[in-house]
Amino acid sequence: MSKLVIVGTIAFDAIETPFGKTDKILGGAATFIGLAASQFKTDAALVSVVGGDFPESYLDLLRKKNLNLDGVEIVPDGKTFFWSGKYHLDMNSRDTLVTELNTLADFNPVVPQQYRDARVVMLGNLHPLVQLSVIEQMTTRPELVILDTMNFWMDNALDDLLKVIQKVDVITINDEEARQLSGEYSLVAAARKIQTMGPKYVVIKKGEHGALLFNKEAIFFAPALPLEEVFDPTGAGDTFAGGFAGYLAQSKKISFKQMKRAIIYGSCLASFCVEKFGTERMQELSEDEINERLEQFKKLTRFKI
Amino acid sequence: MSKLVIVGTIAFDAIETPFGKTDKILGGAATFIGLAASQFKTDAALVSVVGGDFPESYLDLLRKKNLNLDGVEIVPDGKTFFWSGKYHLDMNSRDTLVTELNTLADFNPVVPQQYRDARVVMLGNLHPLVQLSVIEQMTTRPELVILDTMNFWMDNALDDLLKVIQKVDVITINDEEARQLSGEYSLVAAARKIQTMGPKYVVIKKGEHGALLFNKEAIFFAPALPLEEVFDPTGAGDTFAGGFAGYLAQSKKISFKQMKRAIIYGSCLASFCVEKFGTERMQELSEDEINERLEQFKKLTRFKI
Repeated sequence: MSKLVIVGTIAFDAIETPFGKTDKILGGAATFIGLAASQFKTDAALVSVVGGDFPESYLDLLRKKNLNLDGVEIVPDGKTFFWSGKYHLDMNSRDTLVTELNTLADFNPVVPQQYRDARVVMLGNLHPLVQLSVIEQMTTRPELVILDTMNFWMDNALDDLLKVIQKVDVITINDEEARQLSGEYSLVAAARKIQTMGPKYVVIKKGEHGALLFNKEAIFFAPALPLEEVFDPTGAGDTFAGGFAGYLAQSKKISFKQMKRAIIYGSCLASFCVEKFGTERMQELSEDEINERLEQFKKLTRFKI
Repeated sequence: MSKLVIVGTIAFDAIETPFGKTDKILGGAATFIGLAASQFKTDAALVSVVGGDFPESYLDLLRKKNLNLDGVEIVPDGKTFFWSGKYHLDMNSRDTLVTELNTLADFNPVVPQQYRDARVVMLGNLHPLVQLSVIEQMTTRPELVILDTMNFWMDNALDDLLKVIQKVDVITINDEEARQLSGEYSLVAAARKIQTMGPKYVVIKKGEHGALLFNKEAIFFAPALPLEEVFDPTGAGDTFAGGFAGYLAQSKKISFKQMKRAIIYGSCLASFCVEKFGTERMQELSEDEINERLEQFKKLTRFKI
């Protein structure tokens, strides 16, 4: 099985939506990415940090999904990264209520020796220098390095971010971030400009409006599944990225054709993620359910002319 | 050939975009709908009104596209409906600078006798009572009545609008309007509720984010073509509706399958409309160009899983 390295946060989330409210539950980019990637035949390892307050049961939950945790540092006298947010009625915007970096503030990622030759590296949203450190620890150039990032780093660490962007094959960002990073309003122009900064592939996430994949020659569009109800959007973007990375790590060949499929898988998994609070839906997800939903994606987009 | 009745405005538009500014040029919903529908093998008639100031050359232009103008009333001492607008930098929002109803204020549509048995009726955005009058003039129930409307009538003539909605087969509105009309935020829930008001089919236009088609059992999603540059969005929604109506009027059978194709055609034609000011691009559009762009739509959405 192909090795997949996933770096990102493992966190406590406290979430409030119009449908309810949670106490501290399992969250974090690496968690959602890992749970999504665990749906594929790949040897995936998480690289992250938690505090002594992080329950063994959560670690077990991840281990049972065959996620290797050798690269998850536990700081016994530290506290786990905590985020709390409240979604507005439309579920498209949210207010951050609390961000406690805790052990994340001094996080020095260490990729376990046996994963330093991984085929695919998924850099979840983190400080660009942390992401860069992971790339530099790889003993062989991975076949595919995927970068997820956000506007916060464009505002606060642009030079470092540009260094990372230069070294990756795929970047996944949302439409507003693509516009900010490129200075172009048209997403076609934005993607072209971002490609000149390094990545051969640009994935632009548009939330409920789907996602676009660009390489030099082609564009592919994957819709989001129109949903009756979005219960909790937390982790949907990471789940999308995890499905994308996991599918590609499992693929024999990495090509545009495979990336199209990977984006559909990512969108499919994200459509489950939002159905319950936090990671709840992703924990119990079956292969049959995924295949059934993939059929819905096909029906949604197929036409003959 | 199937008969298609198109009711809507024929107008002067004066448009300002970041790319330039026009004097009074040819515009109006019926104009854009008609130009798009003229790409299909259908016997289409416009029902509208203009003033004595409307140039014969514009009427000729429409006639040359095989659009029947017997239902276009010319009020010799009246002035043609005039709209002027200015687009913001993002092209997604605009300010209306001038609206002069002129002859449109007293418009009583008259469907020519020979079109009162038309197979398809396309009701362009107008006062609901004007739309209702057109439906009532039909001597046989058309196989398909398509309604385009907007939030203005929801705010100002909701009761009349609901009467029209009850009588149509398809309604095309944008996402915000679907939410306003239904009181539902989720577009899936909104479409379901609107279906209980009358239309068997609901088309939700999301502009650059594509369009959704709903019937009772299924959902289809058509993306908008990602464009490098949008020159002038005026008429894109009407062009979409015109392509949709024209394709269906040409079809032997009217089914969900055909409607999926019709939406792709509508999106395809709309992607041309925005490339130049006003109707300019639609006047010169060739079948080869359309077919080439349809291939782009296929490539944009095709995947195999």
